[in-house]
Amino acid sequence: MTHSRVVELEGHIIDSGMLGRCMGIVMDMDGLFEVEEFDVGRSNTEESYARMTVTADTEAELQAIVHELHQSGANPVDPLDATLTAAPADRVVPEGFYSTTNHPTQVRFEGEWVEVEHMEMDCAVVVDPNAEGGPRAYTKVLNAIEEGDRVVTGEAGIRVQPPERPRGTEGTFGFMQGGVSSERPSETTIKQIAEAMRAVNDAGGTVLVVAGPALIHSGAREDLARLVREGFVHAISAGNGFAVHDLERDLFGTSLGVNTETLDHARKGHKHHIYTISEIIKAGSIPDAVESGLVDSGVMYECVTNDVPYVLAGSIRDDGPLPDTITDAVEAQNAIREQAHEADMVLMLSTLLHSVAVGNCLPSTTRVVCVDINPATVTQLLDRGSAQAVGMVTDVGTFVPMLADYVLESADSTDSTDPESTAGVESDSTASR
Amino acid sequence: MTHSRVVELEGHIIDSGMLGRCMGIVMDMDGLFEVEEFDVGRSNTEESYARMTVTADTEAELQAIVHELHQSGANPVDPLDATLTAAPADRVVPEGFYSTTNHPTQVRFEGEWVEVEHMEMDCAVVVDPNAEGGPRAYTKVLNAIEEGDRVVTGEAGIRVQPPERPRGTEGTFGFMQGGVSSERPSETTIKQIAEAMRAVNDAGGTVLVVAGPALIHSGAREDLARLVREGFVHAISAGNGFAVHDLERDLFGTSLGVNTETLDHARKGHKHHIYTISEIIKAGSIPDAVESGLVDSGVMYECVTNDVPYVLAGSIRDDGPLPDTITDAVEAQNAIREQAHEADMVLMLSTLLHSVAVGNCLPSTTRVVCVDINPATVTQLLDRGSAQAVGMVTDVGTFVPMLADYVLESADSTDSTDPESTAGVESDSTASR
Amino acid sequence: MTHSRVVELEGHIIDSGMLGRCMGIVMDMDGLFEVEEFDVGRSNTEESYARMTVTADTEAELQAIVHELHQSGANPVDPLDATLTAAPADRVVPEGFYSTTNHPTQVRFEGEWVEVEHMEMDCAVVVDPNAEGGPRAYTKVLNAIEEGDRVVTGEAGIRVQPPERPRGTEGTFGFMQGGVSSERPSETTIKQIAEAMRAVNDAGGTVLVVAGPALIHSGAREDLARLVREGFVHAISAGNGFAVHDLERDLFGTSLGVNTETLDHARKGHKHHIYTISEIIKAGSIPDAVESGLVDSGVMYECVTNDVPYVLAGSIRDDGPLPDTITDAVEAQNAIREQAHEADMVLMLSTLLHSVAVGNCLPSTTRVVCVDINPATVTQLLDRGSAQAVGMVTDVGTFVPMLADYVLESADSTDSTDPESTAGVESDSTASR
Amino acid sequence: MTHSRVVELEGHIIDSGMLGRCMGIVMDMDGLFEVEEFDVGRSNTEESYARMTVTADTEAELQAIVHELHQSGANPVDPLDATLTAAPADRVVPEGFYSTTNHPTQVRFEGEWVEVEHMEMDCAVVVDPNAEGGPRAYTKVLNAIEEGDRVVTGEAGIRVQPPERPRGTEGTFGFMQGGVSSERPSETTIKQIAEAMRAVNDAGGTVLVVAGPALIHSGAREDLARLVREGFVHAISAGNGFAVHDLERDLFGTSLGVNTETLDHARKGHKHHIYTISEIIKAGSIPDAVESGLVDSGVMYECVTNDVPYVLAGSIRDDGPLPDTITDAVEAQNAIREQAHEADMVLMLSTLLHSVAVGNCLPSTTRVVCVDINPATVTQLLDRGSAQAVGMVTDVGTFVPMLADYVLESADSTDSTDPESTAGVESDSTASR
Repeated sequence: MTHSRVVELEGHIIDSGMLGRCMGIVMDMDGLFEVEEFDVGRSNTEESYARMTVTADTEAELQAIVHELHQSGANPVDPLDATLTAAPADRVVPEGFYSTTNHPTQVRFEGEWVEVEHMEMDCAVVVDPNAEGGPRAYTKVLNAIEEGDRVVTGEAGIRVQPPERPRGTEGTFGFMQGGVSSERPSETTIKQIAEAMRAVNDAGGTVLVVAGPALIHSGAREDLARLVREGFVHAISAGNGFAVHDLERDLFGTSLGVNTETLDHARKGHKHHIYTISEIIKAGSIPDAVESGLVDSGVMYECVTNDVPYVLAGSIRDDGPLPDTITDAVEAQNAIREQAHEADMVLMLSTLLHSVAVGNCLPSTTRVVCVDINPATVTQLLDRGSAQAVGMVTDVGTFVPMLADYVLESADSTDSTDPESTAGVESDSTASR
Repeated sequence: MTHSRVVELEGHIIDSGMLGRCMGIVMDMDGLFEVEEFDVGRSNTEESYARMTVTADTEAELQAIVHELHQSGANPVDPLDATLTAAPADRVVPEGFYSTTNHPTQVRFEGEWVEVEHMEMDCAVVVDPNAEGGPRAYTKVLNAIEEGDRVVTGEAGIRVQPPERPRGTEGTFGFMQGGVSSERPSETTIKQIAEAMRAVNDAGGTVLVVAGPALIHSGAREDLARLVREGFVHAISAGNGFAVHDLERDLFGTSLGVNTETLDHARKGHKHHIYTISEIIKAGSIPDAVESGLVDSGVMYECVTNDVPYVLAGSIRDDGPLPDTITDAVEAQNAIREQAHEADMVLMLSTLLHSVAVGNCLPSTTRVVCVDINPATVTQLLDRGSAQAVGMVTDVGTFVPMLADYVLESADSTDSTDPESTAGVESDSTASR
Repeated sequence: MTHSRVVELEGHIIDSGMLGRCMGIVMDMDGLFEVEEFDVGRSNTEESYARMTVTADTEAELQAIVHELHQSGANPVDPLDATLTAAPADRVVPEGFYSTTNHPTQVRFEGEWVEVEHMEMDCAVVVDPNAEGGPRAYTKVLNAIEEGDRVVTGEAGIRVQPPERPRGTEGTFGFMQGGVSSERPSETTIKQIAEAMRAVNDAGGTVLVVAGPALIHSGAREDLARLVREGFVHAISAGNGFAVHDLERDLFGTSLGVNTETLDHARKGHKHHIYTISEIIKAGSIPDAVESGLVDSGVMYECVTNDVPYVLAGSIRDDGPLPDTITDAVEAQNAIREQAHEADMVLMLSTLLHSVAVGNCLPSTTRVVCVDINPATVTQLLDRGSAQAVGMVTDVGTFVPMLADYVLESADSTDSTDPESTAGVESDSTASR
Repeated sequence: MTHSRVVELEGHIIDSGMLGRCMGIVMDMDGLFEVEEFDVGRSNTEESYARMTVTADTEAELQAIVHELHQSGANPVDPLDATLTAAPADRVVPEGFYSTTNHPTQVRFEGEWVEVEHMEMDCAVVVDPNAEGGPRAYTKVLNAIEEGDRVVTGEAGIRVQPPERPRGTEGTFGFMQGGVSSERPSETTIKQIAEAMRAVNDAGGTVLVVAGPALIHSGAREDLARLVREGFVHAISAGNGFAVHDLERDLFGTSLGVNTETLDHARKGHKHHIYTISEIIKAGSIPDAVESGLVDSGVMYECVTNDVPYVLAGSIRDDGPLPDTITDAVEAQNAIREQAHEADMVLMLSTLLHSVAVGNCLPSTTRVVCVDINPATVTQLLDRGSAQAVGMVTDVGTFVPMLADYVLESADSTDSTDPESTAGVESDSTASR
């Protein structure tokens, strides 16, 4: 074992499990570690520092270990500049390219640490030395790589900061770290999510809702529409099916005498589905259909009316699609990526496909709420590694109504306790954005 | 194919699928059928009649087919008396014993059709010719069979009436026959269940709630307690764990300063669990603990205070158990059997074990509501063949609060629309029982 | 109730449940029926005939009922020609367009019944009176509708034939109709599926495999590759992720010393994923990568080498994508549609998205096998209404190896019992296609 | 914050996550910690030591924190003897009793650390000072507590040793710590479980199989019977239903001509079920039925023939029960407890109820394999905190056949590589026990 390197860790590395994880990695990968220096944070608030030498049998094994340590926040002690290699062709990465985590990351360029912008997983990092205002670094997905891009390769000159355990009570979502369960007090959890939504809203943040068609089927359409109307949802990411079901309720709930409040909705559903799409195509687009008065209720209606942006991504199981649906997967992904980067909080409501697509583009610092009736879906989504995530195995058809009640109720009560306030919630939140 | 028998079917045999099912059985079991007579019900309300000859290769095969046709409501044309054979020993059935379905059944004794009492599946039918008031027939589970019991054997002289499709709107629960889905409008479904509960209550019927510990964990304890207190739940069937969790909330929610409204409940839970049982043992029993003031809230408290009977059945995963828990499975099953036979409507809330135990004892005419987050559980419970069953894949932690709101709200509104009424809902429902 | 129409049903309408279902529809939709004539099939093989008058309060209600009866196989007695209405614009259906089921369907044109080609659900039917060889009718999805297309509207002149219950043993798959269970004998079921695959193959039919990435993760890659190589799989429908995982095993299983037989596969996986795509892009395409020797094992390799066509459909959760992936949803759907139309048997292996996409394009006469660990997925796929479907809730990682063993084993034993045969299985099956 | 205590941790406390977890506990419970001394293990094999002062606002809060730290392996620095308090009555614990974890535990009695015997969760610890051979300590479940038992109370004088991360390759099961997935290579995982079973067997250890009726339904009966016959299963824990289904296959698979290899098994199943129980009751017991030749195949048969002990625990959903079934839950639990304490490896096969019952009685040092089709079941079972646990979400109907093949195959190959060996596998393994 003659191949070794010195790495160091800093921060709340013990209670966050970082140090333990790093030691485990070395052992699992048949390496050795020796701790050279260790300053333990003596109290809740003090940070710790550890420096250790990692040894492996071959240079390849050592590199593999160091790569893993990297992802977990251990950095080489002797910071070199990051190695930059030109991409050999469009959509082709240079050998040894560095593949990102979703944690905050910096790269060292000409002796300075540069924050990598738009962090998300499984990207390359491209450095632009000549950017206005100094060198910039940002993530690029494979299909965005252009020939000649200066791509970070190897492990040198890269710093990753995995999320630390929140100290004290600062993390609203800290209460639920570590697991998904259907046996938590449901109402209390929903109340806390409502509070978090209001807090994000009050701070001028952006709440992105990712929603599947089950939300409409399960009767929660009106409640989501309320949240959009009242200004607590700032963007929607969904599929063609979600929009069609939402619009179908509007078009055929009134025109053909079907009472959407009864359970008598199954028959002829599919014909209405196709018809709805056909009508929207005839109108031109969803905004056109709203403007013409064809559509006058529902989630899409509220989005159009309240200028809440939405992305409708196409998929191979779509009927239609609607003219508003982006059918190219790469183009749709780019639109989703923009939504994800702007979001401060994401609610993923009963859709695996769209939630994974959004989740892929999120840094680990974005708050995430996953709601699904299927525990495997919630687990899969939370495994993506958000630091502040809540998973609820519940029924979206009861969750959204309760959530809307709590969000809007507390909105009302906030107003009423503030006699000076003349502005409603909606304008408040709009103003602060 | 020389072995044949003539069977007949009567009633709404086409739209109920009975005739189709019977034809399918014959074909699946490699027999032949020939329809001798067929009078179709000409309209919605008229019944149909079919008589057909069934033929098979061997007498054994024929008997197997006829046995199956029986279970599906086809009866031999030439009614003989049922064959009665003495049970050879305690807990031993005579050869060829007739094993029951859960459908209403009659046996022919001395030329008369006698209704079989306490119908449930997988039992023997015992005839008591010398019962007071004339011959009686009733089901007996295997372990209740006594030597000499006159047990029905063979297929002769037995009539089974599988449930028919409800005509018109008489069946509140008809709306959901044939399937479990998590994509139905949740709130509307809950509203309809609430209405059914009120209807049963108004008619002086008995609502049995079967509840698992997840109900407590998910925060619905207060809501179920409300329903018990207000008189809408007339019996509870649960396990040791349900009662302990309910009592633990009472004992440790106030005495140790844990706020049950927060989510900070996980730690030390297990110690409290054991402690709770120990305290109840010290007090003597749950009623003793209520009387002494040790327990003053929750589901068990409301049961004791409002004289709502409960059965706590033990299981091998119990801690304790509580002194009130019936630890012998056969004894517990007998107690559950009595509950089941008295119930007009059963709510099965997030427990597979206890729901199956209750479901095993129910005739197909009892209304059943199954609520579970796991679709496989709901499917398994509905497969037991209740004619009027609702399955909901939802979160019991949101279901019970919404249900209680709808049941009690409509209770209030009923009162308020009836200015003459001086009696409250609770006394009304009590009076009518 | 003055609005009425006469409909008739023919075939094995009782044991198939058709008649019962139709009567139920009328009652559920608050109509009345009166049976005018009824000839019951007297035996297993004789068909039945029923004619009944259906009445409703309004013409709209009557039309709704008749529409539903239609879908279930009841047809108006007095066959008129189908009504044809020109599509008002591209991708817009005329008012009252007829929306298809997935059952075999005929439309009446100038007094003749014309079979509708390429049956699939939720399409419009377009009639081309001037087709070579006489008038033709075929389905068109909404986005394929062109202005002026002669689209069938209303209910007149349309005949639907829902699948009948197979008589005797003709239906290999009859054994499992009506339900999904994880409690069936797994090995025996797999054996029967293997036999069905061989039978389709022997008859020169086409087996389409729809596969998700879980198949690769769960270790079944080699076994599917075997089935492709030996000629038992004739087309593959998958996503970008499936292909990348398959190729990644090839590229990084040998080049970097990772033993794919160990369980040590998690680390660095994502980097390899991106790298794999980059390498294939560099090579040009999957076939190019096979030709150049870069890829020399796995499912995609066997497809290329054995001329088994594949469709890789893109989605918004893809990395990359590969150059071979069709990223436009509409284009991908069209490619899938072609695969579906050619398939005689479809194996859906642990992918909901792609299985739904394929299932949407299948007529009810295609045999379907759905395998997934999630019972909800299997249920959802079987609900699409294939007449001959097998659903298995099992582990694709054990299912595929067992299936391959049974298919190939019986292939061997077939050969060995036929001393004349000099040709191997592969060439046999190829020859017969 | 004036209430404080000093605790210490020893061992591989960093990479096992112990230290991190302890720091987290203090912070979560609003306490403060200050590290007094810290000696970090400098390399893979060296242990670490930490001593810290924990402070809280009130003594009650401090005690709560120290209690939690205890469970995670942090012990007070100044070891006092454990406090012993006499139980005030049968089945009643003294105030402040210590509730056990499932980790190895010692209590200090008269200055000596005494190992607590029969570790399992949620028990009291009773010290017997006058035991033969010196003082002994052992766990007692609540219902075993007798008046006057000297029960450990408070937190003093107790040491808990949570499992450490296995160093190097010593832990066969280490490969799967931390998660349940249905996307692992199934065959490879099964191979590794087979190797672990053989290793336990070779070492003269005891393999306990906990099995549910789904194992029989899914067709794996013969394969489990093989494993029993060949000596690789040393005890069976199951319910009444498992045994009845197993016996029913034997009784009705041959006597009535039903071919258990076909899928034609559903009909009349329930009657056979009752009949089987009745026949066994007539015979006297399962061993009697084996002796008389009534039963001559299957799992129960092999158990009787090969002297493999079994426990059949009753439940409220049982038919019958069999005479061999223990119907009292407390008595059954005691029988299960004995099985659990003797087991070195436990296979939990598709039964939640019995697996939880067994799991409750296991120390964290017993190897556990959980197999179920339902991920929630596997998660729930693994959460019980075994240090060496494998969870597989797979089909027991394919798992058991593959497992049996691998276990017995490698048994054969081991023999064949050892030409000296004349004894078969079975006698070998018997000899070593």
